[in-house]
Amino acid sequence: MKPDDIEKILEAVKENKVSVAKALEKLKHLPYENLDFARVDHHRHLRQGMPEVIYCEGKTIEQVVKIVESILDKNGDIIATRADRVIYEALKPIDKRTEYNEAGRVATILHKKKKSKAKGIVLLMTGGTSDIPVAEEAYTVLNALGSRVNTLYDVGVAGIHRLLDNRKVIQSARVIIVIAGMDGALASVVGGLSSQPVIAVPTSSGYGASFGGIAALLTMLNSCAAGVAVMNIDNGFGAACLAHKINML
Amino acid sequence: MKPDDIEKILEAVKENKVSVAKALEKLKHLPYENLDFARVDHHRHLRQGMPEVIYCEGKTIEQVVKIVESILDKNGDIIATRADRVIYEALKPIDKRTEYNEAGRVATILHKKKKSKAKGIVLLMTGGTSDIPVAEEAYTVLNALGSRVNTLYDVGVAGIHRLLDNRKVIQSARVIIVIAGMDGALASVVGGLSSQPVIAVPTSSGYGASFGGIAALLTMLNSCAAGVAVMNIDNGFGAACLAHKINML
Amino acid sequence: MKPDDIEKILEAVKENKVSVAKALEKLKHLPYENLDFARVDHHRHLRQGMPEVIYCEGKTIEQVVKIVESILDKNGDIIATRADRVIYEALKPIDKRTEYNEAGRVATILHKKKKSKAKGIVLLMTGGTSDIPVAEEAYTVLNALGSRVNTLYDVGVAGIHRLLDNRKVIQSARVIIVIAGMDGALASVVGGLSSQPVIAVPTSSGYGASFGGIAALLTMLNSCAAGVAVMNIDNGFGAACLAHKINML
Amino acid sequence: MKPDDIEKILEAVKENKVSVAKALEKLKHLPYENLDFARVDHHRHLRQGMPEVIYCEGKTIEQVVKIVESILDKNGDIIATRADRVIYEALKPIDKRTEYNEAGRVATILHKKKKSKAKGIVLLMTGGTSDIPVAEEAYTVLNALGSRVNTLYDVGVAGIHRLLDNRKVIQSARVIIVIAGMDGALASVVGGLSSQPVIAVPTSSGYGASFGGIAALLTMLNSCAAGVAVMNIDNGFGAACLAHKINML
Amino acid sequence: MKPDDIEKILEAVKENKVSVAKALEKLKHLPYENLDFARVDHHRHLRQGMPEVIYCEGKTIEQVVKIVESILDKNGDIIATRADRVIYEALKPIDKRTEYNEAGRVATILHKKKKSKAKGIVLLMTGGTSDIPVAEEAYTVLNALGSRVNTLYDVGVAGIHRLLDNRKVIQSARVIIVIAGMDGALASVVGGLSSQPVIAVPTSSGYGASFGGIAALLTMLNSCAAGVAVMNIDNGFGAACLAHKINML
Amino acid sequence: MKPDDIEKILEAVKENKVSVAKALEKLKHLPYENLDFARVDHHRHLRQGMPEVIYCEGKTIEQVVKIVESILDKNGDIIATRADRVIYEALKPIDKRTEYNEAGRVATILHKKKKSKAKGIVLLMTGGTSDIPVAEEAYTVLNALGSRVNTLYDVGVAGIHRLLDNRKVIQSARVIIVIAGMDGALASVVGGLSSQPVIAVPTSSGYGASFGGIAALLTMLNSCAAGVAVMNIDNGFGAACLAHKINML
Amino acid sequence: MKPDDIEKILEAVKENKVSVAKALEKLKHLPYENLDFARVDHHRHLRQGMPEVIYCEGKTIEQVVKIVESILDKNGDIIATRADRVIYEALKPIDKRTEYNEAGRVATILHKKKKSKAKGIVLLMTGGTSDIPVAEEAYTVLNALGSRVNTLYDVGVAGIHRLLDNRKVIQSARVIIVIAGMDGALASVVGGLSSQPVIAVPTSSGYGASFGGIAALLTMLNSCAAGVAVMNIDNGFGAACLAHKINML
Amino acid sequence: MKPDDIEKILEAVKENKVSVAKALEKLKHLPYENLDFARVDHHRHLRQGMPEVIYCEGKTIEQVVKIVESILDKNGDIIATRADRVIYEALKPIDKRTEYNEAGRVATILHKKKKSKAKGIVLLMTGGTSDIPVAEEAYTVLNALGSRVNTLYDVGVAGIHRLLDNRKVIQSARVIIVIAGMDGALASVVGGLSSQPVIAVPTSSGYGASFGGIAALLTMLNSCAAGVAVMNIDNGFGAACLAHKINML
Repeated sequence: MKPDDIEKILEAVKENKVSVAKALEKLKHLPYENLDFARVDHHRHLRQGMPEVIYCEGKTIEQVVKIVESILDKNGDIIATRADRVIYEALKPIDKRTEYNEAGRVATILHKKKKSKAKGIVLLMTGGTSDIPVAEEAYTVLNALGSRVNTLYDVGVAGIHRLLDNRKVIQSARVIIVIAGMDGALASVVGGLSSQPVIAVPTSSGYGASFGGIAALLTMLNSCAAGVAVMNIDNGFGAACLAHKINML
Repeated sequence: MKPDDIEKILEAVKENKVSVAKALEKLKHLPYENLDFARVDHHRHLRQGMPEVIYCEGKTIEQVVKIVESILDKNGDIIATRADRVIYEALKPIDKRTEYNEAGRVATILHKKKKSKAKGIVLLMTGGTSDIPVAEEAYTVLNALGSRVNTLYDVGVAGIHRLLDNRKVIQSARVIIVIAGMDGALASVVGGLSSQPVIAVPTSSGYGASFGGIAALLTMLNSCAAGVAVMNIDNGFGAACLAHKINML
Repeated sequence: MKPDDIEKILEAVKENKVSVAKALEKLKHLPYENLDFARVDHHRHLRQGMPEVIYCEGKTIEQVVKIVESILDKNGDIIATRADRVIYEALKPIDKRTEYNEAGRVATILHKKKKSKAKGIVLLMTGGTSDIPVAEEAYTVLNALGSRVNTLYDVGVAGIHRLLDNRKVIQSARVIIVIAGMDGALASVVGGLSSQPVIAVPTSSGYGASFGGIAALLTMLNSCAAGVAVMNIDNGFGAACLAHKINML
Repeated sequence: MKPDDIEKILEAVKENKVSVAKALEKLKHLPYENLDFARVDHHRHLRQGMPEVIYCEGKTIEQVVKIVESILDKNGDIIATRADRVIYEALKPIDKRTEYNEAGRVATILHKKKKSKAKGIVLLMTGGTSDIPVAEEAYTVLNALGSRVNTLYDVGVAGIHRLLDNRKVIQSARVIIVIAGMDGALASVVGGLSSQPVIAVPTSSGYGASFGGIAALLTMLNSCAAGVAVMNIDNGFGAACLAHKINML
Repeated sequence: MKPDDIEKILEAVKENKVSVAKALEKLKHLPYENLDFARVDHHRHLRQGMPEVIYCEGKTIEQVVKIVESILDKNGDIIATRADRVIYEALKPIDKRTEYNEAGRVATILHKKKKSKAKGIVLLMTGGTSDIPVAEEAYTVLNALGSRVNTLYDVGVAGIHRLLDNRKVIQSARVIIVIAGMDGALASVVGGLSSQPVIAVPTSSGYGASFGGIAALLTMLNSCAAGVAVMNIDNGFGAACLAHKINML
Repeated sequence: MKPDDIEKILEAVKENKVSVAKALEKLKHLPYENLDFARVDHHRHLRQGMPEVIYCEGKTIEQVVKIVESILDKNGDIIATRADRVIYEALKPIDKRTEYNEAGRVATILHKKKKSKAKGIVLLMTGGTSDIPVAEEAYTVLNALGSRVNTLYDVGVAGIHRLLDNRKVIQSARVIIVIAGMDGALASVVGGLSSQPVIAVPTSSGYGASFGGIAALLTMLNSCAAGVAVMNIDNGFGAACLAHKINML
Repeated sequence: MKPDDIEKILEAVKENKVSVAKALEKLKHLPYENLDFARVDHHRHLRQGMPEVIYCEGKTIEQVVKIVESILDKNGDIIATRADRVIYEALKPIDKRTEYNEAGRVATILHKKKKSKAKGIVLLMTGGTSDIPVAEEAYTVLNALGSRVNTLYDVGVAGIHRLLDNRKVIQSARVIIVIAGMDGALASVVGGLSSQPVIAVPTSSGYGASFGGIAALLTMLNSCAAGVAVMNIDNGFGAACLAHKINML
Repeated sequence: MKPDDIEKILEAVKENKVSVAKALEKLKHLPYENLDFARVDHHRHLRQGMPEVIYCEGKTIEQVVKIVESILDKNGDIIATRADRVIYEALKPIDKRTEYNEAGRVATILHKKKKSKAKGIVLLMTGGTSDIPVAEEAYTVLNALGSRVNTLYDVGVAGIHRLLDNRKVIQSARVIIVIAGMDGALASVVGGLSSQPVIAVPTSSGYGASFGGIAALLTMLNSCAAGVAVMNIDNGFGAACLAHKINML
């Protein structure tokens, strides 16, 4: 519902093509569907440049299924994050295109591989092996949104040659997502090596004074490399959204 | 035990209608019942305007049952919060009027629908679907106390049109309870849109740096909309009590 | 800008009384004034039931003065909180009605004592003497908004007889604001004694493990008395707003 | 090994009753037994006025059993805290005097009821029913150490009459232990009402912003009643030790 | 106002020696004086075993002076803590007995050295030199209350021989107050060496991860020596109160 | 020093144009200048796409001046953040092109307005007036880097019409920076309204439970709008760098 | 890949023994193996003085097995920490030399007992019995690396004679590792008694305000004994690495 | 006072060369001097391998001077840390050898340059220029203790070539101290590049979510490079002590 639309409706009212009551209705009619427990936002794609994504944590399977059906009814794509295997099992019978990334816990139902307007490659880097699930969440979401993805897993700074050895891969990306737990230092080093936007995702991997990812989060917020963007702990999904938005420019 | 009562006892002593020993006893006799592990407050209704509510967490089923029986003996209403289904199963045989809100985890045994002195409608709003259990706790408690309730679930600020679309519903309420996790931003937006008292309840839904509801709690405490009341994380019960107290004015 | 207004504009467009361009302008014209560094909200009174209040912290004196002049131009009332004496000195020459509560750090310029629709008395209680500045902020704001106020200062629970001695004063209030630092226990005790809505304001008075008011804040959020509303630390202003909103019901 | 003992050994050396080598050995021989995984302190009773108590958390059942056997060998009393029922089951066959307080999770093997030098009564008060396990830990430890105990459970400040009604019981105690979670306000109120030493134990009962007992801990550390002693969260054992030490004076 | 008093009043009413109105008045008349900004508790000595102490932080000099005058009027002793030298300068002209402990920031006006019922010696130990101001606060308060005091300053565990060398001094005390910042380890070591009650006061001395005393506070709350009482950070006053209460037993 | 350069050096060695010693030297010679207290990174522009920026906090004026001179010697641009007016006064005599943004505390010496490859407009939004200094830091840095900037100050969600009224301005930006303290809710609302990348900067404006910006930081990290990038508290500079990097794509 | 190596390659290029392409390849070829989910660092021994250790937490069994096989292929030693018994069961069939320390959760496959260049003994001390698992992790790692180890378990400061009694053992060590939870005070006392480097490891043993080891961590960071090194909570592995590095000097 | 000394005293007693009383005195006489406010530890050098260092924070100038005089009397070296220039001015007249490092705030009075038994070089690295004061504290203390020192300042990871360029300097050190604020990532990178012991010191430089050094502290505690030792925030002194102890091995 953009200003242009308001103007068109007003013009239509003026020209008597539309009654006042109907215009008022239109002005108030907003493109979401009320399922009582959820209001599905069918026009989020128009407004935010990406479809509504179902965050499954804290929702019952019944609720997830109903939201999926509501979106499929409007021919929308399904991206369901934090989805246990049970959710995947519940969605498979509904649509045979259902796919599941077990490590990343993302279920998708995509209508057809859209030709992406996204121009470049998003590079996913992780500090260690235990950060991979967060990377895989981002991987599937980026794919579903239409961005191409490269990966460099387990290139943490304790063996910095593993990182320096891959500078060409790093330079070939348009946007870089750095995913790391423990000390989270990878974000600063990558930020210092590259001219592209760097998105840092702290992970909850680690123990003791990593405090479930707080250590890495603070490291990244205080990165001595200028302009590193930080996401919530374990938020691979959010990093994917931001990277795709940038990649669409 | 109000000052008037003290005066009456004193008068009775003066007129020799009551012995000093008995008066002393009366002055000390307070309206609670000692179950050893609990002191049931039978006159809380008089004092605080609402019945004693049983908070089940940390109590054994035996303890809950004994408290319920003690209250029913005095013809009190039962509102048991944080009640697992096992508690509901234990109460059902005691009184057939027992009802259970599974999402909200509240069991009630209500004597009869009291004609409420509460004047208006309490509106329950949630930011997302995963905040609904807290809202349902509030819903059942408000109902039991005698306030009428409206609900607007899943109207978070990421799709602000869902909220703006319901401004009439918002304006028709006397008190508003906003229940939200993650960023908790809904409270500020609703607080800015309305002239009624707004009670904000942060929820523990979210992950990572939501820190079990601390993020939403802090957001709400720092609301840029003036005069938003904040409750403890997930405290739907407390919000219902406050809303009902206000609604009784 | 309510739905009725939209309908009226649409009717006017239909009847050619208003051009489309002008209607569009009207639909977008919202009642605030852009001072570049601030957008003064002249219709907040209509929308939220109370005037825009100027929070002086972080604003230069020049900025405060410009906002004050903008509001006075529209015949609005001035309530400026967290106002140092220098701000008061700067406002006095602008309007001779300027008053200043030094303890509470509130400057006001009120057009005339409005006959208040607020029905009852708001009672301000403090745990100690050092909580009084926060109470005084609330006092002046409540007065400016049109609520009558009573005070009970220094009635902390370490001498609970001081509190019990004043139960009549407590019972005569319609809304109670409890302001306390250190252990913040006063809120729970008052909440247990009264049937009115209780608004708790933690203060930063105390030292060591009071952590600038966090101790009292947590105490109040965890009040064992049901339904105590909590405000931000030292937020006497917010408590006054909420109390007044309730008092207006 | 007190200074007097050193003097005696030196005298014995001088008088050639003891060889230098033996004296050196004695000076270094300290009254503990090395079990490799534990060094059992058989003389703690002499040094600290109470026997070594076995904290079972983090110890295997085998380790607990070996420590118990080592102490029984030296005719010591057994007090085992944080003891699961399995530990109790493992100790019963070793000594038929084994007793178990299930709520408080304390197992004891006491040689004979010692005539206590402890002069007065220790009063255990809890704010609510869910604080009782911590109180029961203290109860059993106090009993084992030889202090008499009184209890007032569920006398939280939300119904302050339950507390005021029991002032005689409160005044008859020599030491008071206040055990409370949530807002922990009971400690301040009791501290204000009494002239005896008050020991406050925060408990982890509560939810949300109680942060596992931090809220109550901070309340108690900031008590506006002067001189309230605070123990670690859920540390009923420590409170009992301190109360007994005071009661032995 | 003890139960006996209530009984006496009731008897007097019965025997017509006292009118109902007057009795009611008496029952409600409680021994504090309302200065508007403070309610001075003249009978705290009777109730809590020690006089009301003036905590000067957050009070204006005028307020402190008025409270002092109110207490002196009733022949009470003055103990003013957290008192800057300006406060001392303001009190000196009022009463020539005014004394001031600059390091401990305590001003006192004591009527005559009372013969103390306190039986033993309270020992004040500090870990370092920078903990002495907190110890001096305790020192002056203990003296004013009537307890004898010994001191052992700068005996921190980094040079444990300084501590072991003074075991006789330690053993001669009835109550021990351990005051330490930084690692706060002194409390555990002293707690392990002694059978008397040990009161631990963390101080804000230190830097970095001492977090203004939090490190020492946590150390003391987690003391591996059983039964160590903990006070708020820098709360020498509270420790003195508790020690004196114990010393009075 | 890119792989191509290494290859060229190797070729030169092979063809005997360069000695081994010299080649080794070259391979190790990196484009920074060692000032002992600082190593000025003259090629950061090549590597990271933006010049080295001088963060003045914690540096002496002498150190800042030396770094500035070192950069000017190599014809670099000067951007000095967190620069007090004294620093500006020290730089002015060195180069007459020195400019100073007092609110944003940024001093710049720019060689000539470079024709920017940055394609679009960066929009700076603030929640309130006290967030403007952070916005001004970003403003000056963006200008110096070559991005065009628009501003919308004081459009916080408490008056959401101020925000909705400016949707055209919002939609015309290529990248959006949202700067807000207190509840930080503006980021979520803007994130929900727009399809561009949104960079959120929490500010330390606010009091009490805003904890110097932590509240806003957590709100933003938990934004319910997907893909909001978060920077350190008050880090207008970092946001500008990131926005410019995105704008250069 | 040390500077010498670069020089050799350059010489070889100059002498035409190696082509430019091959030299470039060599310069970029770094000694790790890419398993996609992990990059195994085969030359870490050369670079850091100790082999790559497999941290099993957050890795699937399949991933651990593949890393183990990759290292065994290159004849490396296997040290797998945080290894559940299932991992041990999976490694046993691969190599019969597999050993497992159950308490310390470390699995090792060592080629032959290497003659250690490590000169002295590393002493492992624990405050209590529940700290032993962390000590055992360090024990096995030290053994595998080639350092000799002594142990003193359960010598916490609550019974300081247990510690003083073992001063000879303490003095005979070259490096000391102090492992303690709860108050963590042992590190300060040992640090004060010894001239060797002391490495302190806080453990998560304890409850309540030990906050999973934060209390001990802070105690150790604030040790009043100068020069105590601190490791992450429960990081026995890291302490072993550091101790061994020092022991190798 | 070592076991050998005890044996000697016992022998002397046996041979009647020393009276029992005198022996007892000797056994209790420990080598510290009681200044009332401080107990100066004259034998710390023997026990801990380094002289007692005066930490000036929280001590009055008079106290510092008295301690200095007490140490000089026994011919000890003076190292006074956290010493303001006023302290230096007070010490200069006492001993003309007084030297002062203004950046590091350390004053020293050293008797003669001792021939150091310390074998190697300690390398001091800082991430940025604002970390230099902490490095300078370490520098002066290391010098006074007798270790040789090298420095690499401002080699933070945002320009990692500055670090890689200095690998030879890094490899030539025996012990490395890494001092960094903000993200503290330098410690991990250096830890990964070197086989020597690495001591990490977080600094309080930074702003916002650096939380006065907590971010860097957590980064370092969670270093993905194994075996990095961590010191308290800004604790250059402690790092120097540890480095010197290692260097003395």
